[in-house]
This record gives sequence, C-alpha cells and structure tokens, in this order.
Amino acid sequence: MSLDTVIAPDPADLSEVTRAPGELAVSPEVADLLFLDAHSVNTFTDTAVPDELVHAAYDLLRWGPTAMNTVPLRLLLVRTPEARARLAAKMAPGNAERVLAAPLTIVAAADPEFHEHLTTLVPHLPGAREMFAGDAAKRDAMARTSALIQVGYLIVSLRAAGLHAGPMGGMDAAGIDAEFFAENGWKSLLVINVGTPSGPDAARPRAPRLEFGQVALSA
Amino acid sequence: MSLDTVIAPDPADLSEVTRAPGELAVSPEVADLLFLDAHSVNTFTDTAVPDELVHAAYDLLRWGPTAMNTVPLRLLLVRTPEARARLAAKMAPGNAERVLAAPLTIVAAADPEFHEHLTTLVPHLPGAREMFAGDAAKRDAMARTSALIQVGYLIVSLRAAGLHAGPMGGMDAAGIDAEFFAENGWKSLLVINVGTPSGPDAARPRAPRLEFGQVALSA
Repeated sequence: MSLDTVIAPDPADLSEVTRAPGELAVSPEVADLLFLDAHSVNTFTDTAVPDELVHAAYDLLRWGPTAMNTVPLRLLLVRTPEARARLAAKMAPGNAERVLAAPLTIVAAADPEFHEHLTTLVPHLPGAREMFAGDAAKRDAMARTSALIQVGYLIVSLRAAGLHAGPMGGMDAAGIDAEFFAENGWKSLLVINVGTPSGPDAARPRAPRLEFGQVALSA
Repeated sequence: MSLDTVIAPDPADLSEVTRAPGELAVSPEVADLLFLDAHSVNTFTDTAVPDELVHAAYDLLRWGPTAMNTVPLRLLLVRTPEARARLAAKMAPGNAERVLAAPLTIVAAADPEFHEHLTTLVPHLPGAREMFAGDAAKRDAMARTSALIQVGYLIVSLRAAGLHAGPMGGMDAAGIDAEFFAENGWKSLLVINVGTPSGPDAARPRAPRLEFGQVALSA
C-alpha cells in the first residue's frame, strides 16, 4: 500500500449536487426544475406574475396531504405599491428591500378557522367541525403544522409552474398578522417573493447540505 | 333571459381534479405523479423499499430551502419487527395496524441540535453555530418550522422516487421521542408509511379541496 492510498481524500464537497440516475420516476430535467437546479432567488425581473400562474401552482399543491384534510394554508398575494410598503415595514432589514422590488410577494399563512370548512372537506366525518369549534389552541397548533407542510408543497408547485421562489422567515409575524389579518385571523408563516430571476447573480451560490447518513437512522 | 339561465348551477364537485393545461412547466404525467393522481396510501404490498430509494428521494428534498439553510429534518427508517412493534405502540388505533403492515415506516423528526452542523451548512456566516448554542427554545421552534416545510418536500420527493406515502399525525409524539430519540433529542413530527399500494382500494376516495378563491386574497 503506497502512502497515497492512506492519505484521506478531501472531505466531500457538500454543496455539490449528486444525482441517482435511473432511480427516480421523474426525468433529470424535472428533478433539476423542482429541486436540484432550483435556488432561492433574491432579485427578480419586473415581469408580472399573473394570478393564473399562482392558481395553477395552487391546483397542484392543494392535493398534497394534510392532517384530516384540513388544508389550512392561506395565501395573501401582495402586488400593489401600498400593500407592498405595509408588508416591507414588517420585514427584517434586507428582506424589506426584496419585498419592495419583487413583482409578486406571497404571505403564506395558516387559518385557525379551518374547521369552518370541514363539513365540505371531510364529508365522511360528520361532526368534524363541531369537534374543533371549542378548542382554539388545538386549531392554532394543527393549522400551523399542516400549513407548514403545505408551504413545502407550495414552493415545489411554484417551481412546477415555471416560477422561482425566494422564501424569507426574517419578519415580524405578529406585526404582519395585525396589519393584514386582523379580521380573518390568519397567522403568517413565511413570506415568499415570486417571479423570474434577474440574472445569474439572482441567487446565492449553492450552500452545502447534509448527507443521507447524517440525517437518517435505521431501526 | 330564460329561467334556465338564472338557476344556479350545481355546486362544483370539489373532489374533482382540475387541470390548467399549458400553464405548468412540468408534463401532465409529472403533475399526476406528484400531486393530481397521488393519494395517501393506507395499505401496501410486501415489496421491500430499499434504502437506496429513500436516499434518492433525500437527494432531491435536501436541496429545498429552509431558514438559514438549517435543514433540520431527520428520518428514522423503521423496518425490523421489533422496532415496528415499539413504534406501533405509540400510534393511535388504526394507525398502529398500518405501521405493523407497511414495508417501511419513516418517522420524520426535527433536530433541535441542528446548530452543530452550521459551520458546515452556512460557511458564509461565521459564528452561526454559537449564535444558537445558548437558546434551546429558539432552536426547538426553528427546527420544527423548517423541518415541517421539509416534510412537504419529503412527501413530494418520495413520489418522485416512485414511492407512495401514507402520512399519519395520529400518534403519541412525546412517547415516540422517549422511545427512539432519548439520546439524540430529535422531535417526531409525523409518521409516514412508504411503499407500493396494495391495490385499487389502498387509498380512500379523493376528498374535496378548497378552491383558489377560498384560500387566496390579493392586496
């Protein structure tokens, strides 16, 4: 054994995308579009994002599973300069400028009043609405949990609709709720700029990820 | 105007999948695979689910965005009869039987110790690990939020790997954590059976969803 072979290799570059060819049920192009070559975008062109494209994304994401089919995710589509300024005032520095410059910003929120739709949503469970009507704390927790899972579907679905997303958690969530959701009681989860990337520098270089062996255990 | 035209149409069948042809950047087949024709599966064949397929799904989902690139989702892959029985004992009735019968069950969990990886994950932010080291409550909340969004990516990615998922929230989460995660501190979020559907009755008939106009507001 030569010395060369016992020198440890450089640690793997964890920002490098690895592909498992032939193992997926989708093409490499779809894997790229939805995950491998998709980046969180910071700067967008002025190209408008019509409601129809967000609607098309919604028509995908709405079929993703949630607890008891509660589907509590709600979307506020912010486009007017006035609403944009009100939202930017509740964002962390840096994110405020991004909100002001994006063609569309979506406030993803959870609806603790989801039970009002359960007669429609779970017709096989009579009384589902009443089961939750008296327990606001339980509804808050359930709405947040399932709506966050739906945020994952939303980001993938926006990409499937050919859009790019720049999700941001740096914000005053309670301030956004007071500013926009005082009447309907929605609880903001995340703010997502949406549109077409402004160019090759619209996203940060890919940051590393953990390897399968670092996140998965077997039992 | 004849009387016919002023009679309101039947309410839309909200369990019917509507397609927006031409608006998506993915084919109808991909839209079907990932969302439109995908169902939460209750009963699976005995066909084994190799780690390689879950790994392939992970190689997609890991690129999905999370707050500060914290990527706190962790996975426990349960296959042995002994582990399966320990997990089933913490599931709600009905879900326990599903865990016992599935070829693979994944416990999706959040890792509040995610900050230990931040030196690798956010090399552009020196001191990120230390920023979180003293604030376990903040880490708990951040881990849960981002890991739930990653659960959305996971379910889509399992489908992109040709697998079918049966996510279940009916469980004793604290009991699962005590049983499996006493040492590593992971917090269970959801339990997902994974495999190949046992037949046409493996999933419940499609339940309705809300329409775009019921979930989206403009400002």
